[in-house]
Amino acid sequence: MENLQPTHNTTLKRLPQRGSYDRATVNAILDEAFICHVGFVVDGQPFVIPTSFARIGEQLFIHGSAASRMLRSLSGGVPVCVTVTLVDGLVLARSAFHQSINYRSVVILGQATLVEDTEQKWRALQAFTEHIIPGRWAEVREPDEQELKATSVLALPLVEASAKIRTGAPKDDETDYALPVWSGVLPLLMTTGAPQADEYTPVATPVPAYVAQYDRKTRTHE
Amino acid sequence: MENLQPTHNTTLKRLPQRGSYDRATVNAILDEAFICHVGFVVDGQPFVIPTSFARIGEQLFIHGSAASRMLRSLSGGVPVCVTVTLVDGLVLARSAFHQSINYRSVVILGQATLVEDTEQKWRALQAFTEHIIPGRWAEVREPDEQELKATSVLALPLVEASAKIRTGAPKDDETDYALPVWSGVLPLLMTTGAPQADEYTPVATPVPAYVAQYDRKTRTHE
Repeated sequence: MENLQPTHNTTLKRLPQRGSYDRATVNAILDEAFICHVGFVVDGQPFVIPTSFARIGEQLFIHGSAASRMLRSLSGGVPVCVTVTLVDGLVLARSAFHQSINYRSVVILGQATLVEDTEQKWRALQAFTEHIIPGRWAEVREPDEQELKATSVLALPLVEASAKIRTGAPKDDETDYALPVWSGVLPLLMTTGAPQADEYTPVATPVPAYVAQYDRKTRTHE
Repeated sequence: MENLQPTHNTTLKRLPQRGSYDRATVNAILDEAFICHVGFVVDGQPFVIPTSFARIGEQLFIHGSAASRMLRSLSGGVPVCVTVTLVDGLVLARSAFHQSINYRSVVILGQATLVEDTEQKWRALQAFTEHIIPGRWAEVREPDEQELKATSVLALPLVEASAKIRTGAPKDDETDYALPVWSGVLPLLMTTGAPQADEYTPVATPVPAYVAQYDRKTRTHE
């Protein structure tokens, strides 16, 4: 897997030691997250819209239906920024100045294009469902022709991208380490609650294993 | 508390029934989240940067230090979009087309301004720490004059803002409800792991109650 090349816009200016252009690092962050934040510009005004996404190889796909304004703007091939962020913990330092958050984020720049090819679109729709919960696609009714038409899919190449990661203990000033303040990290985890069947699911229907044993961290992607 | 007035840019075009301009709803989402995604434009290229934030009354404050590029751009009074998103659950419908995610999001548009007033800046720094973990500010070393200078704080009025919320069970097509597929919601929760003291914290130091009993959902703000 070839690494990503930093560009003028993805070269990290601040705390560059936290940056990474390693494709495996970028992919792992993308695959663990549920949503991305898509940034685009309309008449000089930036908009940032949360939407679901999926990665296939070296391309990121987003649902065009997430916002009509977004779709209208993005399918014209305008510049876009897609950012994905995972929050891992609260970093409790001895000084207010050094309080921080452990996180992993990816920023992707580029131009999104409308996916017109039916087979590629189909694969993207499959990836959306499998990205959220692997195993689901095999059980649900697949999209019909009308649904396929109603869904717009945008593709963004994973070319101009970088990861930024903060991990580990607080960094305090040397003179502060002697302060009698409990300091360290409070880890944050995304966990699942008990699955809630809807009213149309017959009571005897077993909860599928991919729901009951859902674990975001162990999902794997191509 | 007066409600927010929809504008051309915050009027929800798609699924408007999910939208809200209720200030209490907007505030509750902001106060529960750890990070926001800040969107701004440099030479026509949108950037979306995750950063921490805090709300005081009807203003949102962000750390200017999050990215020098961001600071440089935003302090000039350029248009900005700040988006905050909470993910609450996976919505597992009977058709691929209706898979969804339960979420609560807020989109704020406006112009950020640099906070120059020392007292307001101080209050914002306090709010950043207390927003992440209430109770911490009283224990840590407060910022000194140099740290105060080194931190840039931007303020964004909560005027042009809206919330969007999806909640509850899947919405399937009528003809799909009879399909023998377990359907419903898999709730997602942000929980904490065991607090990890750093190597400079004496072993006998008790974990503070605000760390040990941390619960994001029960935090309250002014």
